Amino acid sequence: MKFVIIGGDAAGMSAASRAKRNQPEFEVTVLEQTRDVSYSACGMPYNIADAGRSMEDLVVRQAEVFIEKNKINLLTGHRVTGIDPGTRKVMGVTLENKSFTMKYDALLIATGAGPRVSNVPGMDLPGVMPLKSLEHGKKIKAFIDEQNVKKAVIIGMGYIGLEMCEALCVRGITVEMVKPGPTFLPWMTPELSREVEACVTANGVHLSCGHAITAITPHGGGGLTVMTDKRNFVADLVISASGVTPCSELAVAAGLEIGISGAVAVDDMMRTSDDRIYAAGDCADAIHVVTGKKCWIPLALRANRAGWAVADNVCGKETRLQGVAGTAVFKVFDMQVARTGLSLKEAVNEGFDPAEVVIQSRSKAHSHPGSGIIHVSMVGDKKTGRLLGTQMVGTDGVAHRINAPAVALHAGMTVADLIQCDLAYAPPFGPVWDPVLTAANQLIKRL
Amino acid sequence: MKFVIIGGDAAGMSAASRAKRNQPEFEVTVLEQTRDVSYSACGMPYNIADAGRSMEDLVVRQAEVFIEKNKINLLTGHRVTGIDPGTRKVMGVTLENKSFTMKYDALLIATGAGPRVSNVPGMDLPGVMPLKSLEHGKKIKAFIDEQNVKKAVIIGMGYIGLEMCEALCVRGITVEMVKPGPTFLPWMTPELSREVEACVTANGVHLSCGHAITAITPHGGGGLTVMTDKRNFVADLVISASGVTPCSELAVAAGLEIGISGAVAVDDMMRTSDDRIYAAGDCADAIHVVTGKKCWIPLALRANRAGWAVADNVCGKETRLQGVAGTAVFKVFDMQVARTGLSLKEAVNEGFDPAEVVIQSRSKAHSHPGSGIIHVSMVGDKKTGRLLGTQMVGTDGVAHRINAPAVALHAGMTVADLIQCDLAYAPPFGPVWDPVLTAANQLIKRL
Repeated sequence: MKFVIIGGDAAGMSAASRAKRNQPEFEVTVLEQTRDVSYSACGMPYNIADAGRSMEDLVVRQAEVFIEKNKINLLTGHRVTGIDPGTRKVMGVTLENKSFTMKYDALLIATGAGPRVSNVPGMDLPGVMPLKSLEHGKKIKAFIDEQNVKKAVIIGMGYIGLEMCEALCVRGITVEMVKPGPTFLPWMTPELSREVEACVTANGVHLSCGHAITAITPHGGGGLTVMTDKRNFVADLVISASGVTPCSELAVAAGLEIGISGAVAVDDMMRTSDDRIYAAGDCADAIHVVTGKKCWIPLALRANRAGWAVADNVCGKETRLQGVAGTAVFKVFDMQVARTGLSLKEAVNEGFDPAEVVIQSRSKAHSHPGSGIIHVSMVGDKKTGRLLGTQMVGTDGVAHRINAPAVALHAGMTVADLIQCDLAYAPPFGPVWDPVLTAANQLIKRL
Repeated sequence: MKFVIIGGDAAGMSAASRAKRNQPEFEVTVLEQTRDVSYSACGMPYNIADAGRSMEDLVVRQAEVFIEKNKINLLTGHRVTGIDPGTRKVMGVTLENKSFTMKYDALLIATGAGPRVSNVPGMDLPGVMPLKSLEHGKKIKAFIDEQNVKKAVIIGMGYIGLEMCEALCVRGITVEMVKPGPTFLPWMTPELSREVEACVTANGVHLSCGHAITAITPHGGGGLTVMTDKRNFVADLVISASGVTPCSELAVAAGLEIGISGAVAVDDMMRTSDDRIYAAGDCADAIHVVTGKKCWIPLALRANRAGWAVADNVCGKETRLQGVAGTAVFKVFDMQVARTGLSLKEAVNEGFDPAEVVIQSRSKAHSHPGSGIIHVSMVGDKKTGRLLGTQMVGTDGVAHRINAPAVALHAGMTVADLIQCDLAYAPPFGPVWDPVLTAANQLIKRL
């Protein structure tokens, strides 16, 4: 059995390692276009924040280990340029410009997602950089040191943009953030996003929403000018963080079915429309556990889990994934921001009849010192009583708290069910009624 | 409608407040034997740790507020001595030694739990103190200051004993802990309890398990001698923390049905065997969501929730509680200790065919600085695949993590279901595979 994997990051390497564990006699080949495999992409902003740390710290396992210990045929610098499902072959070219062809019995497309392409003139100037691959991270870090960056503009205000914002501030760089859309964190309920916005601006970061970027040009005195329809921004470094899109070009060209947001359409066994070809990770779609519909939410845990599922399925151990709840957390300065399931707006768009409650609670018990405010938004369906989603922000105790409602979403719990849950209490860790329960207690009155 | 409540702490005051909110015209009377109502008993060790804070900080709401704002007929210093279900009356005596009688239409027994009575001679000596009521807390705190306590012995090594241990150490007091049972944290899986034990002893606390206390006597040079079958311990202060028992004497005398561990037996509407009498809080039993059987697990959240349920049921809004998972968390020094559901031993005793896995994970992502080890024990049932319980210890990120498996227990999830859950990930908050998922991924191999 020849199992070929395109892409050597989370989904690809998870699949490769698990396939070899499952079936050591399988021939498992990974074709990775860069030189880097198995690194923590999500850790890059934190690494960039710390001048003293090497970017290599982020590599979870070196390529040699996969080759020598795991017996994976790992080929870095191998870019796949085409898939021929008829003859079950992939074609490609190496970084040394040698072309190659490889037959497969089973193929996994794990090409990930890439920075959203912008056609704004000047996005290719030196000093304008996305952050997706480890190579990008290394470039940004080197640029900060070598160019003595004092001022940066970040285009985009998503997770990566905000994490980079904090990282650059930690490095003593003045940061401005710009985006075309009118709303800071548009997926977040306004009461909560205001808290995050206040935290970011309190840290000296200037936010400009509703600024359409028209061009980036070299600045007379060195550096760059980011031109928008409202005003110009001058910076030594521009981070382009306007979101990502699935890298599904190979799948498109191979005639595979493409799903929502341009991601490769897969079933619950991660099979594409060709029964020899799987897709997993940021390039593939998934079922949303709340809506039961296809969605594209590229996150690291799903990539790892889907990689494992592919390996099991390729090895004949049928594995089906239920779907995702869109559970996510990030930190920006002292603020922890978390979500799971649908926002009120998303719930309306999905045809639910939702009600939302927004409450304030605290991260520690009444009278316990050092407690912070936790803001919770919770959304439920008036028709069925079902829990639809939860969002949370606060300086303390938010990150892991989101997992209780996440599990409740997977279980299809009603808000009334969630209210019954026996959550942990001790004064240093929260009020007797956990903020999640307080939100649920209030929400049920509106359902 | 005359609604009379015996006991003015978590369950009693929750019931009283909610009943008045539900039905302002109801006559709601609370009979509390002490002068204190609605205080955070769980906060007492933390308050004792801080010499500068008043014990009054722990009072959530003053008695006057309940009387004037909530219009509750709150009578402190009123000890109930008997219930006559036939004539629907309670009888009692005040702190001023006046007897009283009161008629009820609905009665709530919310008498809580009390320190387990010991017949060891000398338990009544000055300087030997339990910690249950606010009065106890005040006494301990005053004693530490007035007697210039340098050395303390704590009898018992449960939550309260360990929290008091930390509190006394913070006050600069040398602490020894003694218990008759052979095992430190006997409900905890050995790999995990060893971690907690190591943390406690690393903080200079001497632990003596398997020491049967035979007597406490005044010590020649002042202070006290705690005599055991193995050796004697000398101390200025002895904290008696050998567990609690339900205060169900009134219910017993009234002929009500008594359940497990001597707690008042209640149905899922908190009704006792007399349909006019409810019981809630630490004096009442509950259904365990994993076993479906009666259990007695006195914890604050349940008390509050059960108080509300009684108020709703008394007011004609039928409310049924599903049960408890025994979710609990406590902190001792830097160690967070959490559990939900059954341990391996408990699962065996309950007739399951359980398997357990114990794993080590980390509180932050690979390569993220400042991460601590998290130890997880997870137990599942081989027959059904069901999740039965989870225990966790670690210095960071344990407390709220226990709530995801707690919700899973309420939902009756299998380990395979839990594995599918989309939990949050970001490098500062955990690995891509949350420790809960890593444990579940390992456990499923043994089921």
